Amino acid sequence: MSKLKQKFKRPNIVTIGGGTGHFALLSGLKNHGVNLTAVVTMADDGGSTGMLRDELGVLPPGDLRQCLIALSEADELVRELFTHRFSNGTLKGHNFGNLFISALEQVSGSIEKAVDGAADVLKIRGDVLPVTLNKTKLVMTLSDGTKLDGEWVVSDSKDISKKGVKSMRLTPKAELNPAVERAIRQADLIVVGPGNLYSSILPNFLVKGLHDALKRAYAPTVYIANLMNKEGQTEGYDCTYHVQELEKFARGRFVDIVLYNTGNISNKLIKRYEEEGMPVVCTPDETMKYIEYVGSDLVSESLFKRKKGDPIQRTLIRHDPDKLSSAIIELLQDTM
Amino acid sequence: MSKLKQKFKRPNIVTIGGGTGHFALLSGLKNHGVNLTAVVTMADDGGSTGMLRDELGVLPPGDLRQCLIALSEADELVRELFTHRFSNGTLKGHNFGNLFISALEQVSGSIEKAVDGAADVLKIRGDVLPVTLNKTKLVMTLSDGTKLDGEWVVSDSKDISKKGVKSMRLTPKAELNPAVERAIRQADLIVVGPGNLYSSILPNFLVKGLHDALKRAYAPTVYIANLMNKEGQTEGYDCTYHVQELEKFARGRFVDIVLYNTGNISNKLIKRYEEEGMPVVCTPDETMKYIEYVGSDLVSESLFKRKKGDPIQRTLIRHDPDKLSSAIIELLQDTM
Repeated sequence: MSKLKQKFKRPNIVTIGGGTGHFALLSGLKNHGVNLTAVVTMADDGGSTGMLRDELGVLPPGDLRQCLIALSEADELVRELFTHRFSNGTLKGHNFGNLFISALEQVSGSIEKAVDGAADVLKIRGDVLPVTLNKTKLVMTLSDGTKLDGEWVVSDSKDISKKGVKSMRLTPKAELNPAVERAIRQADLIVVGPGNLYSSILPNFLVKGLHDALKRAYAPTVYIANLMNKEGQTEGYDCTYHVQELEKFARGRFVDIVLYNTGNISNKLIKRYEEEGMPVVCTPDETMKYIEYVGSDLVSESLFKRKKGDPIQRTLIRHDPDKLSSAIIELLQDTM
Repeated sequence: MSKLKQKFKRPNIVTIGGGTGHFALLSGLKNHGVNLTAVVTMADDGGSTGMLRDELGVLPPGDLRQCLIALSEADELVRELFTHRFSNGTLKGHNFGNLFISALEQVSGSIEKAVDGAADVLKIRGDVLPVTLNKTKLVMTLSDGTKLDGEWVVSDSKDISKKGVKSMRLTPKAELNPAVERAIRQADLIVVGPGNLYSSILPNFLVKGLHDALKRAYAPTVYIANLMNKEGQTEGYDCTYHVQELEKFARGRFVDIVLYNTGNISNKLIKRYEEEGMPVVCTPDETMKYIEYVGSDLVSESLFKRKKGDPIQRTLIRHDPDKLSSAIIELLQDTM
């Protein structure tokens, strides 16, 4: 590469995640002039996405759609359209963006073409890639032998942190989307999380080939610690234990940096949402010698409001997209 | 207007109709370098459109969608997407294009913005305008007092031509979309039909203001005679009687030219579809002094095939888009 070309090359950031945490991350990063590739979990089987999987036999559109909207440069109206949820009749609960992706998957016979089509309408900046192109389902077995069948069941369980997780797998087995492997190879920084550990983040790492791809990557991997633990899910986990669980079921180490929040979450807010969970404690753990801990104020000062008709309970205390993305860009500059 | 400007001005054609006849007309006309404005009936309440009206309270998207697809210059895949009908689960019978328009109407609060949004994605050449922006319903009363409530009921009735029509109205009353009035004022040719007389064509003319706008227009109005009569609907009507019925319920004369088919419909085809209806006979009627009759070969040689999952019975003997549009362009040149 020529010096000039190197100077003007936009850095490549690959994000791996799922859920609303991924949305905040991408919404922030898209304003920093980097090449973004969002790698998206494909184990979702709840809500509108679950209905579409069951009824049409398509791949889960929900997380893809959220990432596409996050990266959209289209008019507000188009983004609203893709967020729109029907609230009446036989269409009740269906999200329009999900219908768009699923219909286009049916018509084109390919989820990649479906994502391309949606990306076109939404005028996205960046790429959105399903972590796998296989139809698969998340299955978790707890230490007492309880089997949690499906991502929706896992994300709804209140027994996980109490009983402990014995095993997690995708069934049938899923192979890494080759486009994800290429993106990781070319990455300058890889970002994992934030998001629900067991239902949004880990399902990516159960896909055969992702861990290997990360091990072979030139770029370091940053894990963004969650702000809040979810009751019954990751209750009492500190950020290091999050990483340990993640690496345990991903079958090997891959986290180089933990980015955690040092900003203040007011006691009033914590009190108000204590039924849903408590903040994730994070102090650098000196026994984790291969991990660099980086603290920064990442928390959003505005409170997230739930949308009418949304069947999913979403976390109300959230990362601030600007703070989060600025911290990541700083890490990028430090590591390149 | 300067001579040069006049020379290069593209002529304006306004089409008024509904149903699959309108689709064939527009598909042909869009290749002739004219400015097209499709005025679309808004009385449809059957099939996927009817479900959406009932469940979401939106304006009927079906005829708008068909016209948008006819004028689309987008990739085949996008046009297929807008034609796609879900065949399973709660979405069964819903057409994706209809969902697109209805969702966008809900999000934007306006059917005009919804049509603009769909027009953008479908990259249409021309304009598609709802004849009215009011929510309304077609009601027909037959001579024996039978009331046919809704466009779907009217189009399904087998009693209309036998019993005769006493009255037709829209309830509540509907006002002409002002954009239609403007388009008609600027038109160089106005084309009405082909399409089902009572369920696709006449509902346009029951909208208050359309007849007045046509009377005030500079452009002549061409009525395209249907190829086939529908059993129980227009059984035994010749093309002149079609015009007479049309002008009777439109409350006044407006047809200047009748364009009718002189091409051969094979006896084999007529035999095969005689249960659905017989060809419309058309011979110039010398008592209709104000009408010019123009005959031309307009019939399609390929047979239309029904689509799987389509709940609507569609005519199988059809106008050929190329022949029809060429005949219209010839009329345009003769009348300008």
